[in-house]
Amino acid sequence: MMDAPLTLTRVLERAETLFGEREVVTAYPDRTHRYTYGEAYERICRLAHALDDHGVASGARVASLARNNHRHVELYFAPACAGRSLHVGNVRLPADELAATLNESADRVVFADPDFVETLEAVADDLETVEQYVVLSESVPETSLSPVTDYESFIEGYDTEYDWPELDEESECGRCYTSGTTGDPKGVAYTHRGLFLHTLMNGHVDAYGVGADDSVLPVVPMYHVNAWGFPYAAAFGGARLVLPDARTDPGSLASLLDGEGVTITAGVPTVWRALADHLDSGDADVSGVTFVVGGASMPASLVRTFEEAHGATVRQGWGMTETSPLGTLMPSDARDGVDGEERYERLATVGRPVPGVSARVRDEDGERVPRDGETVGRFEVRGPWVADGYVDDADEADATDDGWLSTGDLATWDDAGYVDVVDREDDLVKSGGEWISTVALEDELMAHEAVREAAVVAVPDETWGERPLAVIVPDGDAPSADALDAHLESAFPSWWAPDEYVVREEIPLTTTGKFDKRALREAHADERSESANSANGDQREP
Amino acid sequence: MMDAPLTLTRVLERAETLFGEREVVTAYPDRTHRYTYGEAYERICRLAHALDDHGVASGARVASLARNNHRHVELYFAPACAGRSLHVGNVRLPADELAATLNESADRVVFADPDFVETLEAVADDLETVEQYVVLSESVPETSLSPVTDYESFIEGYDTEYDWPELDEESECGRCYTSGTTGDPKGVAYTHRGLFLHTLMNGHVDAYGVGADDSVLPVVPMYHVNAWGFPYAAAFGGARLVLPDARTDPGSLASLLDGEGVTITAGVPTVWRALADHLDSGDADVSGVTFVVGGASMPASLVRTFEEAHGATVRQGWGMTETSPLGTLMPSDARDGVDGEERYERLATVGRPVPGVSARVRDEDGERVPRDGETVGRFEVRGPWVADGYVDDADEADATDDGWLSTGDLATWDDAGYVDVVDREDDLVKSGGEWISTVALEDELMAHEAVREAAVVAVPDETWGERPLAVIVPDGDAPSADALDAHLESAFPSWWAPDEYVVREEIPLTTTGKFDKRALREAHADERSESANSANGDQREP
Repeated sequence: MMDAPLTLTRVLERAETLFGEREVVTAYPDRTHRYTYGEAYERICRLAHALDDHGVASGARVASLARNNHRHVELYFAPACAGRSLHVGNVRLPADELAATLNESADRVVFADPDFVETLEAVADDLETVEQYVVLSESVPETSLSPVTDYESFIEGYDTEYDWPELDEESECGRCYTSGTTGDPKGVAYTHRGLFLHTLMNGHVDAYGVGADDSVLPVVPMYHVNAWGFPYAAAFGGARLVLPDARTDPGSLASLLDGEGVTITAGVPTVWRALADHLDSGDADVSGVTFVVGGASMPASLVRTFEEAHGATVRQGWGMTETSPLGTLMPSDARDGVDGEERYERLATVGRPVPGVSARVRDEDGERVPRDGETVGRFEVRGPWVADGYVDDADEADATDDGWLSTGDLATWDDAGYVDVVDREDDLVKSGGEWISTVALEDELMAHEAVREAAVVAVPDETWGERPLAVIVPDGDAPSADALDAHLESAFPSWWAPDEYVVREEIPLTTTGKFDKRALREAHADERSESANSANGDQREP
Repeated sequence: MMDAPLTLTRVLERAETLFGEREVVTAYPDRTHRYTYGEAYERICRLAHALDDHGVASGARVASLARNNHRHVELYFAPACAGRSLHVGNVRLPADELAATLNESADRVVFADPDFVETLEAVADDLETVEQYVVLSESVPETSLSPVTDYESFIEGYDTEYDWPELDEESECGRCYTSGTTGDPKGVAYTHRGLFLHTLMNGHVDAYGVGADDSVLPVVPMYHVNAWGFPYAAAFGGARLVLPDARTDPGSLASLLDGEGVTITAGVPTVWRALADHLDSGDADVSGVTFVVGGASMPASLVRTFEEAHGATVRQGWGMTETSPLGTLMPSDARDGVDGEERYERLATVGRPVPGVSARVRDEDGERVPRDGETVGRFEVRGPWVADGYVDDADEADATDDGWLSTGDLATWDDAGYVDVVDREDDLVKSGGEWISTVALEDELMAHEAVREAAVVAVPDETWGERPLAVIVPDGDAPSADALDAHLESAFPSWWAPDEYVVREEIPLTTTGKFDKRALREAHADERSESANSANGDQREP
């Protein structure tokens, strides 16, 4: 067969050659920007010339600090296809961690949305390699950054064609850093081969299935694991791309989903919970829309709301920065032959490994656990878009002896192939030698009509080692501990019930929209028995 | 990223791990055989052990001469995944050509359906490398082949697990020979990488889109370019696989399509024309079935019949032995915004390049022709499953200077990306310095209610160099030449009309079900003006 390297250049060329007339829509706060892939392509060529002209060497990196908008799409392609690499900076990292990632990545140019200029200013003195700041706008706001220019000036005047080099498919095209919820951010380098294959897979009917008949709205930020691959999948598949920039409030999203004819959208459960509340107002129709859900578990109750009350399709998945990210997804046949509760139990899993990803669940001795949907073990994956290590970690700490990625998640696997992520190994409550799944408790608590959100964490306990504590955000008046205990009793043994229910107005989130369990554990580690909001102080038998 | 080679082993493992309970159904003439991918997997392991045990060296080849049936599926996987290669023998080749391909391929073991034992016997004395014949059956018929055994005995007693080797993705996993319509058969070697990528692509919504919710019936023979990839796509996607063995008559196919709940089927136009006639009897329902059509052009009139009279979806495509084979296919948005005649004109094209294949249409000077849907040029493709040469042809005869495959087809390309194959460059009629498309004439003739099939070929002409001659199979009484001329007049200039209409009872087909234009040209080269069946002898002005 031909020597035809698998690169993002093929993705870009396909969008330009076949889908030049299709739209990329960005809903900025003050205006809606519309242009075509053809117009984007010309600006991508200009950007590539600008990188050449500014002396960004082949193989060097540039960084973005940006939301989901049209200039960020251009950055997703130009550096990579011109033989550089884009470090997609995580704008939600604490300042010191952000600076550390920019330094480790040795980024030469930083492209930032105007909103993130202040973020950059706070760390600019610590940045060791940055030679140029570019504000993703038509003009530069008042800033101490230097040298600085605006993006339109940066690319102005360059040719709208570019002679893309034939790249080694194993070369780096981009990198992201993990959100650092369990330690310092760790960098994952993506290769052209990995992201091309991930993109091709994303069009598979049992993956996202993004094709020429779709309009795609990624709510998941483009600064978070390549927006789960949607911008690349849309360009390759010829789908319209609809980007919300900063307009990710439920009202704006509802209006975009309905008004722009979106067929597929993607985001974390907290976004969809807020949207579900908004949809009750009846001012938007999301029937027929597919909601891809990842980053955290979406409770079966919320899945049911979307499917039964709104006529939408929910497809939960699983992934990590280390897996580019898609590893599992609810497949096309998930609803076949299962009804009622059984259906929603299945739809609350993270689906099956996607085409191209191999998976296994193993016990502590390294033996595969039975595929019974009940036995918990370590979830491990393998595939061409799965990282074999971190950029600063030559010893491949998260790999098994035989080269699989140890994901840090605990899961069950059933004989139909559905993976149910029980918990992060670090989040699990180890009570009296037995395991309690915080994810399972949260899902069940959130199925209670008076509970809007619930996060469960382990707190130290002298007798049992650890015990669960639940932080709940009530929907109206807070339910009593007895009521919640009674609610949980139908699903779990009594010793699973949290020792305390702490009522809060909101649950802290990580930079990627997940419950920040590290913060919750730290906040509640010492104050368990003294909490003013404690609703249930009894010790239970495990 | 991990070193995770792209091999057919991943396809096999996926079928076994996730889809072990799904069915592979074979409709043998005397019985229907049903088993699961899980059972198939165990026999595939046994077959791999048998190859080891019979001393078939790593990298060596075995051959199959078989129809679409369950044992052939096993052969599609075991040799490849065990580090050998399967030469899928074309059972329709003339005996001498078949022997030549088996010799060139140096096949060590030949697996043959009982029906093809006679074919093998006729050439056995000429076979230079074959050490073992295996009849794909439970017993060996009376035969002169030696040594010979039956398949069940060949694999009996071996272990049902196999430790598959980690293979180089660039290694050969199989090979096919071209059907030789324009010369001796030429061998194309497929690599694991190429067929893995082709398989992943086949699940894309804008390719076949084969997923876990499908039942797939490839009518296209498994001895013809890997049955266009359907067996691999089905196993990888978790689709039920329905195989017709020798039951490819219209009645059997209609019954299988309806009775087995088939969602996707694939074959050449002649098969679907016969099926359309049969469906008029009303004994089968094919509504909702997707018909993938390739190998030759399906006339717009027949597409319309399937879509309007039978509620089916027709997706024409284009491919070659050299392209594994899928190169273009009608995409999901083909019907958007086009109605009536315009819709069927589009649906009569071969669609857009599939994800992963790059295409271009160039004139004789190597310049890309305008994307106007009218300007004809040479169709050239590039991609990771496109061959860069033939197994016995180190000089890569069909490649352009810059490494694209010169397909030998002439095509137009429109701004929406649709490729219309006008003709094989070898089939085109060059009349008085102008080109006449035989494919366009055939399509229009077959749209006439009294014409069942039509093939147009060039015949030598003293004045014009070449002139078109049409061979028609009437549907009932043969129409007059005047009637056909009048019919064509609405679509083409008058000088396009064939100088002769020859009425026949059937049109000779190639080994792959296409009109055998070489045979027709040879048959009519000398007898143009004397044909007893001639219906129109006037010379026309070009």
